[in-house]
Amino acid sequence: MTLKVAIAGATGYTGGELLRLLSQHPHVEVVSATSEQSAGEPLVHRLPSLKGYYDLTLESFDPKKIAEKADLVFLALSHTKAMEPARQLIDLGKRVIDLSADFRLRSAPLYERWYQLPHSRPELLKEAVYGLTEVYRSEIAKSHLIANPGCYPTGALLLLYPFLKAGCIDPSREIIIDSKSGISGAGRTPSAKAHFTEVNEGMAAYNVGVHRHLPEIEQEIRRIGQQKMTALFTPYLLPVNRGILTTIYLPLNEKFTQKKIDSVLDLYRGEPFIRRFDGAPNLSQIRGSNFCDIGAFATPSGRTAILMSAIDNLVKGASGQAIQNMNVMMGWDERLGLMSPGIFP
Amino acid sequence: MTLKVAIAGATGYTGGELLRLLSQHPHVEVVSATSEQSAGEPLVHRLPSLKGYYDLTLESFDPKKIAEKADLVFLALSHTKAMEPARQLIDLGKRVIDLSADFRLRSAPLYERWYQLPHSRPELLKEAVYGLTEVYRSEIAKSHLIANPGCYPTGALLLLYPFLKAGCIDPSREIIIDSKSGISGAGRTPSAKAHFTEVNEGMAAYNVGVHRHLPEIEQEIRRIGQQKMTALFTPYLLPVNRGILTTIYLPLNEKFTQKKIDSVLDLYRGEPFIRRFDGAPNLSQIRGSNFCDIGAFATPSGRTAILMSAIDNLVKGASGQAIQNMNVMMGWDERLGLMSPGIFP
Amino acid sequence: MTLKVAIAGATGYTGGELLRLLSQHPHVEVVSATSEQSAGEPLVHRLPSLKGYYDLTLESFDPKKIAEKADLVFLALSHTKAMEPARQLIDLGKRVIDLSADFRLRSAPLYERWYQLPHSRPELLKEAVYGLTEVYRSEIAKSHLIANPGCYPTGALLLLYPFLKAGCIDPSREIIIDSKSGISGAGRTPSAKAHFTEVNEGMAAYNVGVHRHLPEIEQEIRRIGQQKMTALFTPYLLPVNRGILTTIYLPLNEKFTQKKIDSVLDLYRGEPFIRRFDGAPNLSQIRGSNFCDIGAFATPSGRTAILMSAIDNLVKGASGQAIQNMNVMMGWDERLGLMSPGIFP
Amino acid sequence: MTLKVAIAGATGYTGGELLRLLSQHPHVEVVSATSEQSAGEPLVHRLPSLKGYYDLTLESFDPKKIAEKADLVFLALSHTKAMEPARQLIDLGKRVIDLSADFRLRSAPLYERWYQLPHSRPELLKEAVYGLTEVYRSEIAKSHLIANPGCYPTGALLLLYPFLKAGCIDPSREIIIDSKSGISGAGRTPSAKAHFTEVNEGMAAYNVGVHRHLPEIEQEIRRIGQQKMTALFTPYLLPVNRGILTTIYLPLNEKFTQKKIDSVLDLYRGEPFIRRFDGAPNLSQIRGSNFCDIGAFATPSGRTAILMSAIDNLVKGASGQAIQNMNVMMGWDERLGLMSPGIFP
Repeated sequence: MTLKVAIAGATGYTGGELLRLLSQHPHVEVVSATSEQSAGEPLVHRLPSLKGYYDLTLESFDPKKIAEKADLVFLALSHTKAMEPARQLIDLGKRVIDLSADFRLRSAPLYERWYQLPHSRPELLKEAVYGLTEVYRSEIAKSHLIANPGCYPTGALLLLYPFLKAGCIDPSREIIIDSKSGISGAGRTPSAKAHFTEVNEGMAAYNVGVHRHLPEIEQEIRRIGQQKMTALFTPYLLPVNRGILTTIYLPLNEKFTQKKIDSVLDLYRGEPFIRRFDGAPNLSQIRGSNFCDIGAFATPSGRTAILMSAIDNLVKGASGQAIQNMNVMMGWDERLGLMSPGIFP
Repeated sequence: MTLKVAIAGATGYTGGELLRLLSQHPHVEVVSATSEQSAGEPLVHRLPSLKGYYDLTLESFDPKKIAEKADLVFLALSHTKAMEPARQLIDLGKRVIDLSADFRLRSAPLYERWYQLPHSRPELLKEAVYGLTEVYRSEIAKSHLIANPGCYPTGALLLLYPFLKAGCIDPSREIIIDSKSGISGAGRTPSAKAHFTEVNEGMAAYNVGVHRHLPEIEQEIRRIGQQKMTALFTPYLLPVNRGILTTIYLPLNEKFTQKKIDSVLDLYRGEPFIRRFDGAPNLSQIRGSNFCDIGAFATPSGRTAILMSAIDNLVKGASGQAIQNMNVMMGWDERLGLMSPGIFP
Repeated sequence: MTLKVAIAGATGYTGGELLRLLSQHPHVEVVSATSEQSAGEPLVHRLPSLKGYYDLTLESFDPKKIAEKADLVFLALSHTKAMEPARQLIDLGKRVIDLSADFRLRSAPLYERWYQLPHSRPELLKEAVYGLTEVYRSEIAKSHLIANPGCYPTGALLLLYPFLKAGCIDPSREIIIDSKSGISGAGRTPSAKAHFTEVNEGMAAYNVGVHRHLPEIEQEIRRIGQQKMTALFTPYLLPVNRGILTTIYLPLNEKFTQKKIDSVLDLYRGEPFIRRFDGAPNLSQIRGSNFCDIGAFATPSGRTAILMSAIDNLVKGASGQAIQNMNVMMGWDERLGLMSPGIFP
Repeated sequence: MTLKVAIAGATGYTGGELLRLLSQHPHVEVVSATSEQSAGEPLVHRLPSLKGYYDLTLESFDPKKIAEKADLVFLALSHTKAMEPARQLIDLGKRVIDLSADFRLRSAPLYERWYQLPHSRPELLKEAVYGLTEVYRSEIAKSHLIANPGCYPTGALLLLYPFLKAGCIDPSREIIIDSKSGISGAGRTPSAKAHFTEVNEGMAAYNVGVHRHLPEIEQEIRRIGQQKMTALFTPYLLPVNRGILTTIYLPLNEKFTQKKIDSVLDLYRGEPFIRRFDGAPNLSQIRGSNFCDIGAFATPSGRTAILMSAIDNLVKGASGQAIQNMNVMMGWDERLGLMSPGIFP
């Protein structure tokens, strides 16, 4: 059985990563790849690493034409660009996995406040399922529209989920999320913030307190945790290609020993893409893979736990999780196309 | 007037950095440079960037012989190696600036607990002045033995000092210190933790909760702040050559607006090496310089402030601060030898 | 059908890369992994990226015991360490693929001159097949002992092979080989030459004119080309984890246009792991893959061609080529276990 | 005595580097810094590393207004932008050091062929002195218009100059120049070729055989060497911030031993910024400094020499050499403002 898929926005980093991973998927055929800037060019001109894997010529994105060829469409476009195509593709009976931010926030006014633009398809916000696979697996299985999570929220929420379920967070103190991202998170379009000599051998926080992934994180914390909790979120750009290393200083409502922390994390037993380490996880051990590696530490007071996760922002933080969601939607083994370990060194 | 100085441990990174900076100092002549492993070799064989600046041949370290040539000795040795030479050099009437950890902790039992070794010269702990220049300037001016601060403590304490002075920290919550260091902090001796392919394109925390700079930080927090406060300290290795980026989540005992934070930081007005920025400081702007660049952010609750500092771990975090202390000891302009801006890019 | 293989020297970079790649091979089971330093430890302690893929405990290397479990053994040991085990394993009827230099040079005296050590098993030099797959495929298929090529020789010889076959090189001028290697080529043992802060943001040639891969290259040039030709070989360490970029300035015995160069390279049509590009190949497009990407340029005089290849030194330059050779020996599709494209970015 | 200087194009990397170096110059005051995009902004907003060194507000570039304030103007603009301002400033009696390519080629038709644009001020080509200080020092001292050399030509010509003077190059073979540049050579304007994730962990040649620095190199080779000689020039982008490592394979017209090579290089005795090393020079030893470090190797045949140089492309390859030229023009010690050693690590 072969699923025909299309990728809208194939020449950005998440689009390219979908193509890289899908080249290893036994049940998928990529029938179309789109790019507005490079329409008409062979795909491999823009992604020479894929030479020999794809014969596709890049097309301009026309949802109707795509719908004639593909049964599932990955939208790897910038935000606001996914709203209308998602509507069209769904109306044509297609499955859609959207990697942009357009369907992640459940409230249109909240979207409009943070993205400074009106949401043209608020009715889809109710239909969309937030694609954090480990948390919403059963909803994903039944859905036709997946809002694939942001990279930072994935790294943070996978750490928080077991503690939210266990109901052990102290809501009177802030959850502190200190999150360091590789430069591919800034996208493939040239910009000062991702210019080699501006970021190499440097490091700095950016958008302190005002990053758009904060409302996404807080939405899910409150929904899963069922009470009002507040996060401080500090993102940084780190001079590496891939990876997000997230450290969370978690306020606890009672004293936690290491053993108790470990038992909360037992929730993840059997999860194919969550790996628990005794020490601190390193970005170098998940490069190119779909794993979320986790470490967790008790502190002397016992009232704060230190949690750490390492993910590849392009894989578990974007395209890998999107494929994992596709596998869930199709009722396949969740690991298909995602079975390679990370590349080290 | 020329001061004759010697550098014990000249071929490590802090020794090399002393030599680089002192080559620009108008009142200093380096009369001796030691290395146990390379004694007999020309200095510039081990430090080719300094070719043309120094004609010295590396010597084995003999405090008595050094004392015949030099008036001030920088000890850039590994910990425990500085105790006896410091005693000898002081007895011979020399000034000593020690860049190791041997005289930083004021309590010998505390040293022994964290370094797992007896302290052979506990009587010097009382004489030694902790060389955080901006805090202990007047004591430094009168001292003959400086315990030059650790790199992480420098980046953290310079952020905390104004708030400790202002008495506005809430001692019931932990001070969270999340600190990312370039690899030169691991020294010049080959090791797995600084092997290129082990750390490049990666990032991880290490020694979570058990790093030896934690007691140094807590000692100074409590001494300056005059009450018991607790810190959580998480250090990371970052794949850049130089720099420490420290973020502190500071618990405040009342609501702080941005304005109030700024007014606390006004304490640093006129400090030649502290620069205040509106945004987040970047490691790329202090590379090779003695600056400590600072940013500070209020949060929605007002009960936590987010503070950030960027220093070059080899300059302000080690050799630059050592030279600044030497300048203070000699009654010179504090900036001598330290006037170059950072190298960007 | 499943082949049982063992890896001697599993915790170095080529050993780890064999394990990474073999985890994706449909017909191979790794039954043993050895390490002298870490014997008794779980394999994944030393290679955390492989957690979930292997349950092996590292063993000390005992050829007899290994031979009881495995049918083919990869020797990923340092040079001189492979001679005796190869003898033993062959005598026990096993296939051996040696990734060290021990069987690459066909002449024991030549080996002894360059490696400054006697060769204890010169009789095996005649049996060993030089495992440059594209050149010696039919011999490899019949062999039980493969001398897997060095990383630099692989990148250089794959460029030279078509021109050597075409007989168009001018032997009166030197073949100039300028070859830039990522740091993983220096191995996993900590050393000054691979210490992060010594090599990051730097670049330099090393062993100019005296690198041990020079006699290996010259041996094959002369053997394939059937006449005496001389190479100048300049290797460099480049601050990246993986990859060798080789540029050859090739002296031609007649005027060559671009078209004529292209027609010589047509020899590679149909080769699964050689990709020809119109422009210059980039290390970023073959990272983690078994490809050798090639570019070639005519010059105004036509008497010199500029050839370039990009390989991943750990894959096509070592472990990937070793697996390709295993596939050839077993009569399998040469691409098994090697089908992933490179990771970009 | 203080010279008033202006910098046109102050926010690019060569402009910023002029400012960094001039901050250490005892006889220079920077009275104006221009930027079209950031006119009206404080200079330190664009160059935060210089905070505390300059109080300037960026201006739009108006040659007449600049001429009222400054006696010497550095033009750090992109090519074609320097022609008219140079004319105006010279007519107003000012000295001009142009860091663009506009006055480097002595022939307007040659310029027009390589830059695909007419040269509007061909009469200035005769007046301009090519600012390769070590070669044209006496002409520079008398000039009012300096064409500061390109970064690649500087690294290559400083290697070739002594051999050209010695008349020992074989003109029947090509001079092969293989030159690896850090990314700052691509400038500060965001572009795909300098986008972090496109170049980090990669390396590739570009503009093979068609780079605009080739005619500049060939012009000077022929002029200094007084005969027709041909070069093959291959530039690469290397994932480091700064530095050009140039290797030249030099065809010699007779057999050269190491000793004979060394004696040719003795020409540089006494040069303050040329350092000769026995081994291969490393980019890490000249970072941020004005040195050109040189290594040279004989080969078995003796008919080819291997020459290597390491320069910082922004210093000796641009702004440092420009300041060196200014010092020569002013009759000052050539080293003023350029006395710092490189930053290592």
